[in-house]
Parts: sequence; C-alpha cells; structure tokens
Amino acid sequence: MSDRILIAGAGAIGGFYGALLAKAGAEVSVVCRSDYDVVSQQGYRINSYALGHWQFLPTQVLRHSREFSGEADYLILCSKVTPDVDRVALIRDAVQANTSIVFIQNGVDIEAELQTAFPDNELVSGLAFICCNRLAPADIHHLSYGKLTLGNLPGSVSEKTRHLQQLFLRAGIECTLSEDIVSSRWQKCVWNAPFNPLSVLSGGLPTLDILQNQEALVRRIMQEVCDIAAACGHVLPEDIVESNIQNTYAMPPYRTSMLLDFERGQAMETEAILGNAARAAQRHRVSCPALQTLYALMKLRELKIQADRQEKSAP
Amino acid sequence: MSDRILIAGAGAIGGFYGALLAKAGAEVSVVCRSDYDVVSQQGYRINSYALGHWQFLPTQVLRHSREFSGEADYLILCSKVTPDVDRVALIRDAVQANTSIVFIQNGVDIEAELQTAFPDNELVSGLAFICCNRLAPADIHHLSYGKLTLGNLPGSVSEKTRHLQQLFLRAGIECTLSEDIVSSRWQKCVWNAPFNPLSVLSGGLPTLDILQNQEALVRRIMQEVCDIAAACGHVLPEDIVESNIQNTYAMPPYRTSMLLDFERGQAMETEAILGNAARAAQRHRVSCPALQTLYALMKLRELKIQADRQEKSAP
Repeated sequence: MSDRILIAGAGAIGGFYGALLAKAGAEVSVVCRSDYDVVSQQGYRINSYALGHWQFLPTQVLRHSREFSGEADYLILCSKVTPDVDRVALIRDAVQANTSIVFIQNGVDIEAELQTAFPDNELVSGLAFICCNRLAPADIHHLSYGKLTLGNLPGSVSEKTRHLQQLFLRAGIECTLSEDIVSSRWQKCVWNAPFNPLSVLSGGLPTLDILQNQEALVRRIMQEVCDIAAACGHVLPEDIVESNIQNTYAMPPYRTSMLLDFERGQAMETEAILGNAARAAQRHRVSCPALQTLYALMKLRELKIQADRQEKSAP
Repeated sequence: MSDRILIAGAGAIGGFYGALLAKAGAEVSVVCRSDYDVVSQQGYRINSYALGHWQFLPTQVLRHSREFSGEADYLILCSKVTPDVDRVALIRDAVQANTSIVFIQNGVDIEAELQTAFPDNELVSGLAFICCNRLAPADIHHLSYGKLTLGNLPGSVSEKTRHLQQLFLRAGIECTLSEDIVSSRWQKCVWNAPFNPLSVLSGGLPTLDILQNQEALVRRIMQEVCDIAAACGHVLPEDIVESNIQNTYAMPPYRTSMLLDFERGQAMETEAILGNAARAAQRHRVSCPALQTLYALMKLRELKIQADRQEKSAP
C-alpha cells in the first residue's frame, strides 16, 4: 500500500513538494482554496529547472481538510505563517491518530501552536531552501535550489521521517535530516531576518544589491540572530555569518519571498521571522537593536498598507 | 537706507522668509531657478495661515547669484542640503566683504563647508520650524508654525543678527536667538532623525501614526541623537526626548519634509540629517544602532530609486 499524503496550503511550495511525492509513488491529495477549480480539473503543471516538466494529478482535490476521506500518513502543512492564517484550523479535521504532521514553513518559535493543538501526534518540522513561484493558477515554476531539511520535534529523527526523506530523494530532490531541527530553523533565520525585510523596506532591491551596499548592516542583523539563538539554547556554527555572506554573494541576485508577498499585496511573514525573534530576545534579555528596528519598520510598513487598503475600500 | 537681502535657493521656505523680510521693509532679491519665469513676471503669492495673503515682488529676480548687482547685507541660503547641491557655488559670486551669510537649512555638521569657503564672513546658522509648501510655481502656502532660530557661528549673537531678528519680528513671525546654535541644530535633529526616515520607510505615514505605533523606536533614536550630541560637546536638555514626544502627540498629524521630497522624486536630506549624525557617532565611538540601521535603509531606498530611474531612462 502506498503512502497517503495530504498537502494543506498547496500553493507553489506545497504543490511542488506534493508533485515530487506523487512522482515517488505516494498517493497525494491536496487542500487548495484559491486554485481549486483549475487544480480539480487539470491538476498542477510543474516546470522545474532541474527535474523537467510534468503534470501532477492529486488523488483528492479538496477545498477544506475536513473533506478528506481516509487517513493520512503524513499531513504536510505548507501555508504561510501569518496572523491571518489559522494553522491549526487548516489541518485539524484531517489529523488522525497515526498522522504525522509535517510543517514546511518559515520562521522561528512557530512550533508551540501545533504542539499544543496536537500533543499526541508526531510533529515534523521542515525547512525548504527553494525558489519556486506560482505563475498562474496551478502553474508552478521551480527556479532554483530545492533542498528540504526535516527533523522531528523536539529533536530527533523518526523512522517515519526517514521514510519521507526517502520519498523526496527518490523524486530527485535533496533532502537532509536534522537531529536538532529547532537549531536548523534558527540557522535559516540568520539569512531571512536581514534579507526579507531589507528587500521590502528598500523598495524592492534584490539580495546582491543589499549585500554589496550594506554588508555591515546585514552582518550585524545576522549576528543578532545568532545571539538570540544562543540565548535560546541553540548555539549556531561559528562561521554561520561568514558562510551566509559568502553564499549570498555567490548566488544570483534574488528577490526574497517577503518581497514577492509585498508586491502581490499578500500578508508578509513579519511576525514569524522578525516578531518571534524579537520576542525571544526580549524573554532572554538579549540586545538586538538592528533587528528590532527592522521589526518596528515592517510593522509601520504594514500599517500603511492597511491604511491604504481601508482608504480604497471606503465609500 | 534699507537692508539689502539676497535669498538663494528661494523655494517655499526661502520665498516665504524673503516675503516676510520685504514686508518688514528690507530690499529683498531672490535667486530662483526652477520658478524664474513666474517669479520674474508676477512675484510670489503668499498665503499664510497666520499672516494672511499678500504678494511679494522681489527687487531683483535672478537665475544665478553672480547676476546680483550691489552688495548684500545678508545672503540667506535656503536650499536643501543634499549631495546634488553645491552650497558654496550657489552663493559664492554674491558674497562680499560685509555680507553676512545666513543658512536656514536642516541637518547637523553642515557648517564646515561654508566656514572653509568664507572664512572672513559673518556666518549665521538658522533653523526653521515651519510647515510651508509650494503649491505651484511661486505660489507658497504657509500651513503652520513658522519660528526661526538664529545664531552666529561658532557660538554667539552679533548685533547684525539681532537686527535681522528684529526684521522677522516686525513681519510678525517668531524669531529667537541662540548663543549656542550648534546645540540648537542637534536639538532639531532629535526630532528629524526619527520622523523623517520613518515617514519615508513606512511608505508615507504621518508623524502621529508613527508615534502611536512605534513610540519606543522613536524614543530610542532620539536618545541616540542626544548621546551623539553629548559626545560632540553639546549636552542637550534632560527632558528633550520627553518634550519632543509630547509635542509630537499634541501637533496635528504631519507629513515630514523628507516624505514630501520622496513623493516628489526629489533628493532627500539623508546625509545632512542621518549620515552626518552617524559619522559624528563613529568619530566619537558612540553606539547608535537604530540610527545607523535607518541610515543604511535610507541609502538602500535611495539606491532603488536611482536604479528605477536608470531603468526608465534606458533605451
């Protein structure tokens, strides 16, 4: 019997990883709301720079997880982590006793909500290092990277998670395991905390311009994230700032996911990335003035977006 | 014989103060480039919330200070302080032995350039607390406030400066004198350093929204400016942060001059306000992480504006 997988929040990232799992032989269903009509009629079109073109026809296409029939071995949550998304409500009705909940999402300190709601389920935390866009409804373009990192909470790797890794590897995508996925999450934040807000607040600069012109600020924010992580018990590798800087110089100029959300008028992961880091700093009395300034600025930027929206919708 | 005054950089602020001096009986000429045609034909139309409507017909209307005939008692420089403006070149040809050079401009550490170029002239530093807009060429709207503060460099008040004060008072505008105008300049920076960049980086919020939502950040930046000023030998009043906060709560929501420049696609006074403060901090090894973050962000924002402009003008 093949693995039964349900993807919730199946936008670009969820659709892409779902398509890979289906390719690997799993029985993959999706919950997708905005693209429901197109997906239910013709599935997803995947166009990957590395893995070619193919069509992904989900087993079940649903508007809500409560419509799922059967028991999912893995429920993979790929929604964004923003205040307007109730992550627990998104998946609750499809979680059964043996369902492993895998959340492939950005941000730090985003575990507690799921741990509290599903105390008896296996929880797998996942990080996607990928550039993947939705060009049109159900039309997914995988532009670069693709690596996944998976690890069980609070810190281990189960057999079931190894099995999921095997499926991803079989489909041709890099997938590593982490015995300390919470530290891995902080490591990813080292890159996200500077580049995501700086790309938005600069008015839309790609990563290379930011780095070439304000490397000192980028380094400072990265170091602040390391300090916060250490205070939370996650001492990151000593060379992590340096390696993030060098890797970003080496990669093609990149427009961050937060910038894309901003340009599309969608909610941004400000709280998941900056707010949670700033709150962790406050709890542990770690000084992080640059990160806090970025966080405050993003909140002001969001306030202005909201004000503009209200003005537009006013009679 | 009446006072001969030449205003250089006669936009909204220069035009308005020039109009006041003419009202007080001085012989006022102007150098104005962009509005030359309108001003030379019909002068300025002034519409002040406090002082009514009137027309201001300058004695000489010039495109450049070298065209000025006669000797100016006061040459009042009101241009913005931005890297694209050569302040010395703007006035050099009209400065004579007895000309007092008065610069009514924003920013800190902006004296040296003029002191070096005109070592033998009286130099008067001026600060305008005013909200004044140019609605159309030569059409100036004075919306609120208006107070001027004047003081000689390096720190005194001359008889000639007292005389200038009298002219302003006669015209009906508040004008105070400062024996320590460099400290006064830092005091003004306490307000400018947070609100100007935050209004731009937030995407256009007025002062009250910024303050109501991020008072802690505003206070932090204000305190950093106080620390820098103190290190430079200008200990500001103890209650200056508190009084700036309270005054800003009390004033109507205000769109800063930097925001207006930004929206009009004009150069912003980033260097005069933030850059010079950050450099002073560096010289004196004062920590100012929030201010430095704002400065770096403004530089990125300006880089993006420049990049967009180049893209537009590309074939």
